Amino acid sequence: MTHPLRQHIEEIIDLTDEEFEYIFSHFETVKKRKHQYLIQEGEIAQKEYWILKGCVKSYFLDENGKEHILRFAMEHWWITDYESFVIQTPSNIYIDCLEDCELLYISYENRDKLTSEMHKMERFWAKKSKLGRIALQKRILSLLKNSAKERYDLLLEQYPKLFQRVPKKMIASYLGVSRETLSRLNS
Amino acid sequence: MTHPLRQHIEEIIDLTDEEFEYIFSHFETVKKRKHQYLIQEGEIAQKEYWILKGCVKSYFLDENGKEHILRFAMEHWWITDYESFVIQTPSNIYIDCLEDCELLYISYENRDKLTSEMHKMERFWAKKSKLGRIALQKRILSLLKNSAKERYDLLLEQYPKLFQRVPKKMIASYLGVSRETLSRLNS
Repeated sequence: MTHPLRQHIEEIIDLTDEEFEYIFSHFETVKKRKHQYLIQEGEIAQKEYWILKGCVKSYFLDENGKEHILRFAMEHWWITDYESFVIQTPSNIYIDCLEDCELLYISYENRDKLTSEMHKMERFWAKKSKLGRIALQKRILSLLKNSAKERYDLLLEQYPKLFQRVPKKMIASYLGVSRETLSRLNS
Repeated sequence: MTHPLRQHIEEIIDLTDEEFEYIFSHFETVKKRKHQYLIQEGEIAQKEYWILKGCVKSYFLDENGKEHILRFAMEHWWITDYESFVIQTPSNIYIDCLEDCELLYISYENRDKLTSEMHKMERFWAKKSKLGRIALQKRILSLLKNSAKERYDLLLEQYPKLFQRVPKKMIASYLGVSRETLSRLNS
């Protein structure tokens, strides 16, 4: 059976068996339990994760200790704190597990090595990075432009599975609305 | 004298004279007058611009015709609607010139050609894309977390030149505050 990571990469570039084996040798597997952290504020992100199983959230805490959710990630999504990972500076955010998770990860050094050695992998991650940038631009447009109701509908349309897996108060935090507002939207 | 685009690219990767000449042959130059558009809502972005001289803004119009500014760009910055350019779908935004501008641009086809042919250029634009993504993440954090005063101070610290070149009402739009609030912050 084709490894899901290979299927995922081959949505963008084709690989030979040897190429995938070589790429895969740069990854490690790790299991995390619900509530465990992938990164905490103040740490430098050394790993980019690819989710085999489970669901995580990234968020920051404001000065009052209130959680603001940046994004969720589920099966076959990449996640790290890209600011910390790319520039290798201390992170301002947390990423933790909403469920027991099984993850692949690649270290900063191995990712840099792979992209230097293999034009194909540079191209793969460049495409992923471009798509990530687009998702963030959409989020900004949505925060500036859409009502809470519109943001809710957009999220429901894009990620219907999220609503079955993630507590409502977290959806509210992601949308930047109160839990009460969300209850109204939800009814 | 070294071309400013070469200096700019060589901040990330080294180029031979032949390589730069080849790269540069994929660019065109264009002059635009103040108020002219680089892209308008509904068009598919076919060009990525690099600013030689001048200042532009990207924005969208909400249903009431109100302008919300996404970003500014000045000398030696790249700009296009990345969502439209990368996925080749109709744009939701406008980009227009705040001053008379001199620009280099590369077409979608030529950019794809260059990045396919030259691993170095794939790497260069991948790095640029990663940095663009980080800037957007910072913007989201700032919109969710910081007060108007903090957002103002951050912008002033990051881009002091903007405040000399851009009308105050546009700074207010970028920050998501009213012009009156900005006047208070500014005094």
